[in-house]
Amino acid sequence: MSNTSTPKPSPSLDQDQFLTILSREDALARFEAALFPRDLPSEPRRLDDALGCALAEDVVAPIDVPPFDRSNVDGFAVGSADLASAGEAAPVQLLLNDETIACGTAPTRPVLSGTATAIATGGPVPRGADAIVMVEHTQPAGQRAIEVRRAASPGQFVSYAGSDIARGEALLRAGTVIGSREIGMLAACGIADVQVARRPRVAILSTGDELVQPGEALRPAAIYDTNGAIVTAAIAENGGEAHFLGAIADDEAELEAAMRNALAGSDMLVLSGGTSKGAGDVSHRIIARLGKPGIIAHGVALKPGKPLCLAVCDGKPVIILPGFPTSAMFTFHDMIVPVLRRMAGLPPRSDAKVTAKVPVRIASELGRTEFVMVSLVEGSDTLIAYPSGKGSGAITSFAQADGFLKIDALADQMPAGSDTEVTLFTPHVRVPDLVIVGSHCTGLDLVTAPLARAGLIVRSIAVGSLGGLAAAKRGECDLAPIHLFDDKTETYNAPYLTDGLELVPGWRRMQGIVFRKDDPRFAGLDAQQAVRAALADPACIMVNRNQGAGTRILIDRLLAGSRPDGYWNQPRSHNAVAAAVAQHRADWGMTIAPVAHASGLGFIPLAEEHYDFALVAASKRRPAVQAFLNALASDEGRAALTAAGFRPA
Amino acid sequence: MSNTSTPKPSPSLDQDQFLTILSREDALARFEAALFPRDLPSEPRRLDDALGCALAEDVVAPIDVPPFDRSNVDGFAVGSADLASAGEAAPVQLLLNDETIACGTAPTRPVLSGTATAIATGGPVPRGADAIVMVEHTQPAGQRAIEVRRAASPGQFVSYAGSDIARGEALLRAGTVIGSREIGMLAACGIADVQVARRPRVAILSTGDELVQPGEALRPAAIYDTNGAIVTAAIAENGGEAHFLGAIADDEAELEAAMRNALAGSDMLVLSGGTSKGAGDVSHRIIARLGKPGIIAHGVALKPGKPLCLAVCDGKPVIILPGFPTSAMFTFHDMIVPVLRRMAGLPPRSDAKVTAKVPVRIASELGRTEFVMVSLVEGSDTLIAYPSGKGSGAITSFAQADGFLKIDALADQMPAGSDTEVTLFTPHVRVPDLVIVGSHCTGLDLVTAPLARAGLIVRSIAVGSLGGLAAAKRGECDLAPIHLFDDKTETYNAPYLTDGLELVPGWRRMQGIVFRKDDPRFAGLDAQQAVRAALADPACIMVNRNQGAGTRILIDRLLAGSRPDGYWNQPRSHNAVAAAVAQHRADWGMTIAPVAHASGLGFIPLAEEHYDFALVAASKRRPAVQAFLNALASDEGRAALTAAGFRPA
Repeated sequence: MSNTSTPKPSPSLDQDQFLTILSREDALARFEAALFPRDLPSEPRRLDDALGCALAEDVVAPIDVPPFDRSNVDGFAVGSADLASAGEAAPVQLLLNDETIACGTAPTRPVLSGTATAIATGGPVPRGADAIVMVEHTQPAGQRAIEVRRAASPGQFVSYAGSDIARGEALLRAGTVIGSREIGMLAACGIADVQVARRPRVAILSTGDELVQPGEALRPAAIYDTNGAIVTAAIAENGGEAHFLGAIADDEAELEAAMRNALAGSDMLVLSGGTSKGAGDVSHRIIARLGKPGIIAHGVALKPGKPLCLAVCDGKPVIILPGFPTSAMFTFHDMIVPVLRRMAGLPPRSDAKVTAKVPVRIASELGRTEFVMVSLVEGSDTLIAYPSGKGSGAITSFAQADGFLKIDALADQMPAGSDTEVTLFTPHVRVPDLVIVGSHCTGLDLVTAPLARAGLIVRSIAVGSLGGLAAAKRGECDLAPIHLFDDKTETYNAPYLTDGLELVPGWRRMQGIVFRKDDPRFAGLDAQQAVRAALADPACIMVNRNQGAGTRILIDRLLAGSRPDGYWNQPRSHNAVAAAVAQHRADWGMTIAPVAHASGLGFIPLAEEHYDFALVAASKRRPAVQAFLNALASDEGRAALTAAGFRPA
Repeated sequence: MSNTSTPKPSPSLDQDQFLTILSREDALARFEAALFPRDLPSEPRRLDDALGCALAEDVVAPIDVPPFDRSNVDGFAVGSADLASAGEAAPVQLLLNDETIACGTAPTRPVLSGTATAIATGGPVPRGADAIVMVEHTQPAGQRAIEVRRAASPGQFVSYAGSDIARGEALLRAGTVIGSREIGMLAACGIADVQVARRPRVAILSTGDELVQPGEALRPAAIYDTNGAIVTAAIAENGGEAHFLGAIADDEAELEAAMRNALAGSDMLVLSGGTSKGAGDVSHRIIARLGKPGIIAHGVALKPGKPLCLAVCDGKPVIILPGFPTSAMFTFHDMIVPVLRRMAGLPPRSDAKVTAKVPVRIASELGRTEFVMVSLVEGSDTLIAYPSGKGSGAITSFAQADGFLKIDALADQMPAGSDTEVTLFTPHVRVPDLVIVGSHCTGLDLVTAPLARAGLIVRSIAVGSLGGLAAAKRGECDLAPIHLFDDKTETYNAPYLTDGLELVPGWRRMQGIVFRKDDPRFAGLDAQQAVRAALADPACIMVNRNQGAGTRILIDRLLAGSRPDGYWNQPRSHNAVAAAVAQHRADWGMTIAPVAHASGLGFIPLAEEHYDFALVAASKRRPAVQAFLNALASDEGRAALTAAGFRPA
């Protein structure tokens, strides 16, 4: 949410609203107490339109299933007493009654002693019969009789009326979600209409001048509205009928009108937006005017998710989600889904949990329950939970995680090697076939594409070269992609390998100077000349790379001790360098050729970086590793890398 | 499918078609080989309409997310070098630039050395700045400056461009099912339209004269079409677009027209029906005319599911499912779903598996892989898998099972106490809160209703009184409902209890003679007189109960050694007795009052049966057991039982 007033010396922030931070449990308890119990509206639905709905009431079986004693085989309906003496040496002849009971035909003649009636599978057992003899166990005896050479036990091949479902029994309970199996049970009883809980209508409003809807062009300084789409989808996934009403600009009158209108036609209102602390002010003032009791909790001792605001306005829940995507989604799932499911007549979601070990220390803030998104990989004897390093501002922190672990409010860390419980986002872990931990490169996506097409699950966790090496040494991955320059030997990667790791050559990435094509200062120069030109102009700002990056070593050599403006701007990726130059935050930096070209920037090549793989030798024989090595060596793989601007080794 | 020809001495069955029975693996392999590889049609979808669809192609991130270096807090953009010397005792003053960078506003001025620019969370870091100082860590210094008393590290509170998602990286792979998290990632990149696999159009036809659609009145000898509804729903659950075309009567010309029409507009055709071996003949003849190569497998060494027929007609799969519901659903999930999901561009379903112990011996047929539907309950140290006793003709065998276990084709049994792997139908087991194993009664549903409303999961497994007692002794349930009459002591239930079990009185069920109200033979008689009248008329047929039933003992006493017609007709439930009398298969029998009344039958009371509970003492303190005991003793519970015709003890 933007601040459109005239420039202020300091953003004016209302701190008061954060004075009464509730615990997660308190906030949810107060929210639920203000909403429940309540009458849940229901509606009739045709069975074929009820998939995924929750039953609003118990269903009692109105008939017996099967509705009559039914033959389970093709054969003859008999009185078992007639066959008491039958045996291989003592055949019994039975006279055939003059009818054949097909499926769907009601018998008209009783089976009297000494007689039998032909009956098809599914046919109703006639009066007087108490067993069925399979046709395979009979011989014709002329046109109007059969011979039977084995006894029949009473009830043989008969399914009795009500043996499947008995009239009057509780067939399904209120709250049951109707899946295909429930539809089968209802259909078997002839039920074509069911009373289901009406899906709560949930209106979603995004707030903020900075938001652009997907599909539209992105203005400078604007971002795409992620939360609107994800919340809308998550509401549909949890039993709600979601209505996304778009993004509203930061105008109090306009926002109030939109909120009142949204709430009038809905059972619930979710606002997403407001990344800054001050951003929610307007929405909060409006909520206070929308209905009683108003705000229930504003600020929850929860990370991610502290700025969550829960309100109830005249019986309807109104929620302001935190602005950062992972905060928004985590609080949505943790605090809003329970309420939404209850309003939808659904049972609580039961999340699967697994035990896993954390490979690294995770710091945590005292006094707040902290939830950490993790990716799971299989270790030698247990699952390993990698914390997402991207933070609550990142959509991928949430979207690519397998689940989350919890650090208690009273702990300030979770030590490396701890065993912990991970709550899964999906019903069960699909352990990846191939785990790649280290530095990411878009070339890697090209090499793994055929593996993905073959149905192999490839998990790539970007933790940088050194993090990848550490994971490989611990046996937590199959491959660690690295590009580590060794100053002493002036070579890449090989000096960093230890026992149990093998070097698999990957590809070369040309590093060089990027600049805007319309910047005349760099036209026609080589890299050394370009840096000299930049240093000569005090208005020329650079963008650096982080300590430890191989590219940083190259830059420092070129600068030879100079510290021009921008030197301390040290992003961690080739993409960030290109973006800074493209967007005029800097004038030059060092990145790789494919990234410079994708950003439409000028590029002066300097030196190749070696992007190779530390292969965990113990994994070498694994089929997915072999598939990777084959893809890397294949003509197709090499061609794809070359086309993208990489040079296969 | 009915046989409408004139009565025949013996149903004519074509055995030839069953001569070439394939193994499950062979049948599936041949079916898939005839269908794949194939081009999967795809279609564009708006993101907000793509939930649950499978991506048809890899998606590459078209932009960096965030698209610029973004501030993560409200504060001031600074050059970190300016604050290198700042400390509590050494404040640094920075002049404020004349702008405030709100979320969504592009900066217009660079941050030169000695200056700072106010910036909101989400705002783009301006040129020249490389860190953000939180507003809380600053002091105003007049109108146009701030004072800072701590150093700032480069990159502090900055999320670099592309740090969440880097332009050019593989965002999502083809085959990924789009859930809310994937929608979030796509929206974050501004993607509003995706190419998804088009859902295969699947036509479903039910066949059989005996079928009545749910909602219509049930004719004598007819049954409701269960498979049509359940298959339609299961197709929707597995990525297909299901079109149920109704039930077709057994007319070859009409069926062929319907099949041709269905196939012309669809990608797949599923026929359900044909419970008898001969029933499929017509459909098979038609398939041979529909296209090449025709029938791939007819008859699979699989139980349940042997009569399954798999065909491919000019590239389109055509399937005839077995007629019995559990056979139909099991083969659908085991053999059809893999093909359907592949046609829908979906990854294979990954079923969860658990280990469980079987409490009883399960017999199996040599030479066929047998799948046994089971219900899971928690034993003292492992899960217990109860086989469903209802057989493949029962819809509840499949619908109420938690999953299935497999008995190898080469085994003729699974011994009691075996540990086995159970494949779950649902992603994970929800272990029930209360397990009741024994004899079922509709009164039980009334008592457990409030538990279900409170969210407790009650599992009731009907295995009869003796089976329940055995389960209780093994500690596999909390309560065993029993009604066992002890001849010696002439009392119910108590004599059967052993150490560790306590008797909880339940209710009394009045047993008596049932007859059709319009039958003059029983009008105004008491039970003894009624039986004498029945025995006096040779045309009067009885229906008995199974050995071991308390009711059977009463009947035998009344008959005093007589064996009238119908004596050997021995169904296992009160409902089956009432249905036999109501449908004229018998003229009298013994059942309980509520069942007789529900069937509209006359009833002559004789003696009360005691329906009590053997409570596993070790479970007594469990909350769900306490809730059950409270519900049983409550005024509400007693009133509900009384209203239904039971007499609370």
